[in-house]
Amino acid sequence: MSRFFSDKFSSLEAYTPGEQPKDMKYVKLNTNESPFPPSPKAIEYASRAAESLQLYCDPECTRLTEEFSKLYGIKKDEVLFTNGSDDALNFCFSAFCDDETPAAFADITYGFYPVFAQMNRVPFTEIPLNEDFTINVDDYIGINKTVFIANPNAPTGIALPLYDLERILQSNPDNIVVIDEAYVDFGAQSAVGLIHKYDNLIVTQTFSKSRSLAGGRLGMAIANSSLIRDLNTLKYSTNPYNVSSMTQAAGVGTIIDDDYTKKNCAVIAENRGYLTNKLEELGFTHTPSVSNFVFAKHPELDGGELYRSLKERGVLIRHFTKEKIRDYNRITVGTKEQLDILLKNIKEILQEARA
Amino acid sequence: MSRFFSDKFSSLEAYTPGEQPKDMKYVKLNTNESPFPPSPKAIEYASRAAESLQLYCDPECTRLTEEFSKLYGIKKDEVLFTNGSDDALNFCFSAFCDDETPAAFADITYGFYPVFAQMNRVPFTEIPLNEDFTINVDDYIGINKTVFIANPNAPTGIALPLYDLERILQSNPDNIVVIDEAYVDFGAQSAVGLIHKYDNLIVTQTFSKSRSLAGGRLGMAIANSSLIRDLNTLKYSTNPYNVSSMTQAAGVGTIIDDDYTKKNCAVIAENRGYLTNKLEELGFTHTPSVSNFVFAKHPELDGGELYRSLKERGVLIRHFTKEKIRDYNRITVGTKEQLDILLKNIKEILQEARA
Repeated sequence: MSRFFSDKFSSLEAYTPGEQPKDMKYVKLNTNESPFPPSPKAIEYASRAAESLQLYCDPECTRLTEEFSKLYGIKKDEVLFTNGSDDALNFCFSAFCDDETPAAFADITYGFYPVFAQMNRVPFTEIPLNEDFTINVDDYIGINKTVFIANPNAPTGIALPLYDLERILQSNPDNIVVIDEAYVDFGAQSAVGLIHKYDNLIVTQTFSKSRSLAGGRLGMAIANSSLIRDLNTLKYSTNPYNVSSMTQAAGVGTIIDDDYTKKNCAVIAENRGYLTNKLEELGFTHTPSVSNFVFAKHPELDGGELYRSLKERGVLIRHFTKEKIRDYNRITVGTKEQLDILLKNIKEILQEARA
Repeated sequence: MSRFFSDKFSSLEAYTPGEQPKDMKYVKLNTNESPFPPSPKAIEYASRAAESLQLYCDPECTRLTEEFSKLYGIKKDEVLFTNGSDDALNFCFSAFCDDETPAAFADITYGFYPVFAQMNRVPFTEIPLNEDFTINVDDYIGINKTVFIANPNAPTGIALPLYDLERILQSNPDNIVVIDEAYVDFGAQSAVGLIHKYDNLIVTQTFSKSRSLAGGRLGMAIANSSLIRDLNTLKYSTNPYNVSSMTQAAGVGTIIDDDYTKKNCAVIAENRGYLTNKLEELGFTHTPSVSNFVFAKHPELDGGELYRSLKERGVLIRHFTKEKIRDYNRITVGTKEQLDILLKNIKEILQEARA
């Protein structure tokens, strides 16, 4: 920290993204990326947009908004596009939390929430999950805080049904409830259909996972027009051109080719079943994930050691050092070929451990 | 504003970007874009990057940093890449301003500075320019605030020599001085060479103007490694993946093809001379611009009316309603063909006004 850095950030601890080592070619199952390339339409549209980069991108994302609102059955002023959904989440912490309205989220969830809270200097409460890593819905009833729920949750992959989300929304009518649906397309119920029923609901989603655009940076917030207007005020007060022309075009390409996304999501769901079956055969237990990752542990293997052994063997998975989940690893559901390499290596590590 | 929006933003007034009307095809001289497409290398690299968007972009911008630091003769830890230079400027307001360290900038300068200050809830002082729109350097000597200077300044195009910037840097050893060099490549002296001499200097630049990447969103902060580390803390606390793979690749393409940028800048400088000569012949006065725009007024024409008449005729220029500069218009230096259309229309408007 330099001597010029503002004291207000003296205790700020930045987020640590999943590692991206460049020393060798890994089977990369650590950052929940899609194993499938973007839709050919996304590549084509983005490449064409690259030819006109001398012009500013459209801050209103007009074409993208049109296509997206058609696909999602919402009005054009009910969505805001952002530079990845992190951007949208950061705006939510900024716009709807302050000293009078603290944030609340699970103790085991997306690791960026406490960072966003600290960055925006808003107080926050971390609510412990149940022993089985499910959310205890009663903990959020009438909580009188701005609620952030990843649904499905990360890194557990467990989803709440809409019924439970509605209980939380109904019991906190004067507080915003943000449902972070980064992984919703792989098998959970989306709350987007509820934005007209609850004026306190914001849904965030991303094109990074199911739509294979992680490197393109496209996320969005979906809510009633009044809340979208608030978020737009922050966008136009920080970076009106936050989504590049190429990214807007890639987004349009994936929406036009929505069947491609649907097909990929079905494959991931199938591969998730394949992976969990095989892991169970090897003695692993895991949470009931409906996302594109599996959260698993083995009674004979230390979580950190399994992660390190696999890394040595060229397979990357994600390990978190937090006490409550250090026995576990989060494994991205890749192609069958990738999963077979993972499983083969796990078998060998198990044999070595037992030898 | 919704009933949920935090009171802390109740008086926030968002920035208004230059208009991008879609009703017809305009000769667009209103947002200081380059009239030249990006380097073919930039297009090629960005298109190739589009094929692998399923993978997260490199948060460290490794390749881009390598090429850039080589070209600029700086170390790799002395630059931070951002989603346009607005992103870098916003980080500077956030990191280096607070109640004890207010911001200071000219009353006539980039219109986003007061918005950044309000967004980050830091107090700020707007220091009046001299009558001739030059900066009175003495106003900034020992000011004990975080100083933001656009050099060349916008919308005037007037630059300060390094000698004056050094006086400001030397007299404020305990405060950051941010030199915003968005337009430096068109004829001003860059302060990048001073980052080792002054530990309180941050230079921001952008690929939007001289490098024809406005729609790609690539900016950067250049400073000693200690200050870059502070800015990185904020980047990793808001959006570690703030620069997409395609944008990083486009940036590498333009750096590798730096002669293309140099050639374009030379053409713009020549066209600027052409435009100012022709405007003078028509009775305009203008500030001594070294940027890719000209700031001009005519004794017989109201600034707002000239802007509106040109817009009706399909030519967009930028008009600001601020009292001190409402007689003026800011005109982007385009191609000779674009400028001839502009000049022909101005002539006709003048004839009509005189009829």
